[in-house]
Amino acid sequence: MSEQRRVRPAPLSGFPEWTPEVRLVELHWLDRIRAAFERYGFCSVETPSVEALEVLLAKGETSQEVYTLHRLQADEADAGEARLGLHFDLTVPIARYVAQHFNDLVFPFKRYQMQRVWRGERPQEGRFREFMQCDVDVIDVDDVALQFDAELARIVCEVLTELGIPPWALHVNNRKVLQGFYQSLGIGDPLAVIRVADKIDKVGVAGVEAMLADDVGLAPEQVRACLDLAAIRGSGAGVVDDVTALGVKSDLLTEGLDELGYVLDAMSDLPDGTVLADLSIARGLDYYTGTVYETRFTDWPDYGSIASGGRYDDLAGSYINRRLPGVGLSIGLTRIFAKLVGEGLLETAASCPTDVLVVVPNAERRGVAVETAARLRERGLRTELYHQADRIGKQLRYASRKGIPYVWFPPFDDGKPHEVKEMAGGDQVEADPSTWRRP
Amino acid sequence: MSEQRRVRPAPLSGFPEWTPEVRLVELHWLDRIRAAFERYGFCSVETPSVEALEVLLAKGETSQEVYTLHRLQADEADAGEARLGLHFDLTVPIARYVAQHFNDLVFPFKRYQMQRVWRGERPQEGRFREFMQCDVDVIDVDDVALQFDAELARIVCEVLTELGIPPWALHVNNRKVLQGFYQSLGIGDPLAVIRVADKIDKVGVAGVEAMLADDVGLAPEQVRACLDLAAIRGSGAGVVDDVTALGVKSDLLTEGLDELGYVLDAMSDLPDGTVLADLSIARGLDYYTGTVYETRFTDWPDYGSIASGGRYDDLAGSYINRRLPGVGLSIGLTRIFAKLVGEGLLETAASCPTDVLVVVPNAERRGVAVETAARLRERGLRTELYHQADRIGKQLRYASRKGIPYVWFPPFDDGKPHEVKEMAGGDQVEADPSTWRRP
Repeated sequence: MSEQRRVRPAPLSGFPEWTPEVRLVELHWLDRIRAAFERYGFCSVETPSVEALEVLLAKGETSQEVYTLHRLQADEADAGEARLGLHFDLTVPIARYVAQHFNDLVFPFKRYQMQRVWRGERPQEGRFREFMQCDVDVIDVDDVALQFDAELARIVCEVLTELGIPPWALHVNNRKVLQGFYQSLGIGDPLAVIRVADKIDKVGVAGVEAMLADDVGLAPEQVRACLDLAAIRGSGAGVVDDVTALGVKSDLLTEGLDELGYVLDAMSDLPDGTVLADLSIARGLDYYTGTVYETRFTDWPDYGSIASGGRYDDLAGSYINRRLPGVGLSIGLTRIFAKLVGEGLLETAASCPTDVLVVVPNAERRGVAVETAARLRERGLRTELYHQADRIGKQLRYASRKGIPYVWFPPFDDGKPHEVKEMAGGDQVEADPSTWRRP
Repeated sequence: MSEQRRVRPAPLSGFPEWTPEVRLVELHWLDRIRAAFERYGFCSVETPSVEALEVLLAKGETSQEVYTLHRLQADEADAGEARLGLHFDLTVPIARYVAQHFNDLVFPFKRYQMQRVWRGERPQEGRFREFMQCDVDVIDVDDVALQFDAELARIVCEVLTELGIPPWALHVNNRKVLQGFYQSLGIGDPLAVIRVADKIDKVGVAGVEAMLADDVGLAPEQVRACLDLAAIRGSGAGVVDDVTALGVKSDLLTEGLDELGYVLDAMSDLPDGTVLADLSIARGLDYYTGTVYETRFTDWPDYGSIASGGRYDDLAGSYINRRLPGVGLSIGLTRIFAKLVGEGLLETAASCPTDVLVVVPNAERRGVAVETAARLRERGLRTELYHQADRIGKQLRYASRKGIPYVWFPPFDDGKPHEVKEMAGGDQVEADPSTWRRP
């Protein structure tokens, strides 16, 4: 290969990659998230990384973010094939999946999906071109029980707590509250107000005020009422009274407040500050129709949402002649993880999953080391056999550099006992490979 | 959405997708494979799905199989960016990874990598456009200990055995044997013979015979000797004697036979028929330089290899000025799994991971059901709470259709006991949510 041009291997912006010790923590996180989803009985689904372009664009959104696929040496035989693009979220794929496999699924269909997604965006803090999303949704025919609006948020709160990340809060709102409130104010296009209200984190209250007046064309008293509503937040069902106190009345508003009250009540046993009713939360996407969620780090309020979602009336209307409403949340795993890595807050311990390194005392006694390692593995211990009869100091340094917690010494002479050394404390004691357990 | 055009959701050829009960088995397989790799202390690595095109094409191979990425609405700002392609294997990415992170890794670097790869090939049986590979490799600086040639094959044999798939054999050979043998016959371009010999499964002995004579230009006695070598196979180190008996001598041949004998000997404790020395195995890729592996289903000898690999002298020569030899195998998970699905040999049991479904007796006693489900989950039982106070028969049918093994009945009246029903046998007994264990 020496005659070949040398290629300088460089990181690709927006495509995160981790060294083994960081990856080991990420894998642990993924295990925790999966375990939380499975604890509630949700099933795993994976879909292909690609969808037909007409599926990806069926809702006419985010078209500029899609990566399309081309064969490097495409030929005329490709001309008749479907154009393919990488999925940019896991909602479009699950909608297509549910429609396609409708007759093979049991409803309510409770699934989780942990996969990479791709967006051809300009990378910036918290925004990647390839990232891992962990979605959990319930989809049912005609109606979805309201209990799931609380159950899904609870699952996400539980697992974010387990991950031990810096303080965060799950903000909850209900689109029916916003829509009913705006309609009662005589606003003709409530969705236009929702789209503007959703920008409150980016442009601030003054920015939203100006946009509502200038872009949406609201009267000053309408703007004032919208801002009063958006200012309401609280940790419990008391926010329902605060909204009612604004004096606006409509059936849709009442329905939304009932739902919001139910969800807050069902999560009232969670630790204080975990769940926050926040009437400023809108979620920009048109398809949300009820509960909406957004999760933010307390200390980094401007960093993007780390777990978001909501309830939608009709997931798969583009594909199937059945109404399939649903509710779901998506944990932005890469967004959370990369932030902790970037802030230097991620604690790593080892670069491998190994419990024990078995030393090779010398070439003659390699067979004993091989047998010892096999015995330990049979008993469930993750065991490396050192690869050659190097100096013992070199073998110990290998264990130390990889963060392997125990080093095993098979007997250097027949009749002598095995010994095991705890690397952190330095203790070395006799041990039997057939009975030893990791303390 | 009713005004939108309806898109018919259809499977994409070459992009497999499974229903939840099949996916549950696939997930179990992935867990087993990962556990086997970790049992030997290998660390997890994941790399981005894409690489710069110059990295993918650095070895000048398989260019027609690469999917390149394009932003749907690319603009002039993209012009200066690296051209990206989806990786077509996990070898090119790990070579780039090791070179890029060289100073952060501990050598010998023992990693596993379980990821999707993409090839823009025409789909056919056993060939997919998106599929999951499970790679395990050891990479070291300057030299890699020969013990890994045996250890890696052992790991793969162990895990294929655990998966309980139809009979298979891991075929082992050594490229030094082939190269040394051909050179001693006076053949000037041994790699040309290796490339032809690799086709023996596809074109048969007669086909190889013709190609060696006509295309490579070998003399009849050279062709004869090559075919004699390729005919040798056996379950143990006896094949070394069979090769020696052909009367060809060279240092490289001897070195290759020593290595082959070592690997066979180190795996001689594995069940009969698991490992097969097979002098016809060549592996077409030029970069293999020692041990080579191929694994085939016994009953479907023409189906592609389900686990392959080998030893290479220099993995990352395209990227770094260090010699990084390695040895590795790749398990073709999707190829194996899809075959079993296609043959109707995959046994599925449930469509969800749930241990217990908790029944909601009636709307008034929903609170007791909520508490019961929480208690069971705390104790590690994967528990679904039925979503509404439907008829009990309907709740039982939900459990039955999903294959949930146990249904829990909270008391319908205060002071009455909880009961749990085993769905398979139909037994229903009193139980306490604080102590019950799944039998």
